[in-house]
Amino acid sequence: VKNLALLLAAAVVLSAPAYAQSAAKLTEAVRNADLGWEKVFSARNLDASVDYIAKDGAMLPPNAPIATGQDEVRKFISDLFALKNLNVSWQPDTVEVANSGDLAFTAGTYQMAWDDAQDNSHTDRGKYVTVWKKQADDSWKVLRDIFNSDLPVKP
Amino acid sequence: VKNLALLLAAAVVLSAPAYAQSAAKLTEAVRNADLGWEKVFSARNLDASVDYIAKDGAMLPPNAPIATGQDEVRKFISDLFALKNLNVSWQPDTVEVANSGDLAFTAGTYQMAWDDAQDNSHTDRGKYVTVWKKQADDSWKVLRDIFNSDLPVKP
Repeated sequence: VKNLALLLAAAVVLSAPAYAQSAAKLTEAVRNADLGWEKVFSARNLDASVDYIAKDGAMLPPNAPIATGQDEVRKFISDLFALKNLNVSWQPDTVEVANSGDLAFTAGTYQMAWDDAQDNSHTDRGKYVTVWKKQADDSWKVLRDIFNSDLPVKP
Repeated sequence: VKNLALLLAAAVVLSAPAYAQSAAKLTEAVRNADLGWEKVFSARNLDASVDYIAKDGAMLPPNAPIATGQDEVRKFISDLFALKNLNVSWQPDTVEVANSGDLAFTAGTYQMAWDDAQDNSHTDRGKYVTVWKKQADDSWKVLRDIFNSDLPVKP
């Protein structure tokens, strides 16, 4: 019994730094998922962008209905990528992962520019929250992505 | 050693239903937090509404900058509650909690109606994602709340 108690005590003491290291690694993995999605999205790579969406994932764009599942998300991203001279990018400023390492969110800011059918240039900037879920293959995929503009509604 | 192995096996078998029950309880607690916030928010109770925001929490409203921390959130909610004949409500349709029970999100739909200074009536409806964090006192508070309209931008 005494040996067992010592073993348990040692396990607790030894697991603390391992746990902290694991938490930092998890945060890094989720930040890399956000940055990886931004890379393919800003490059307007449709297949790779859709591939970041979980099977039961959704995108929630402003002034449009929710796009649920990879098919509806593909339609939304495809329409977005069809905008003339589209330039879109984002930067995460917050990454938080659950202690269990199965659920996480990132948040940050985005910028967008595009031309309309009349060749008028438009710009937008705003903020986003993305909920991430760790998949069976240890990759992180998007469960919910929602964003909105910082700018007042234009007349 | 044989007794220890049996004990460990028993612990694993017995903990499975306890874990499932605990997960269901966690989901219920987060759903109740969402419903509780909606109750005081729809009743336009400013203090109680702000009290649901975590110390490092934020609200991310459309067409406005992010409101970070309880002071900025209080200003945002206070301005919202000042709208004439404001009627706001929401319903969660998704509740997901991390296995560790420290981080969760809810998502759903909202409805809003109000009158402007010229007594014109306005309505809006849309969707939201709220990220929840369990506090030291076991209550769930809002880390991020973001929403946007389903309706096209009005001219």
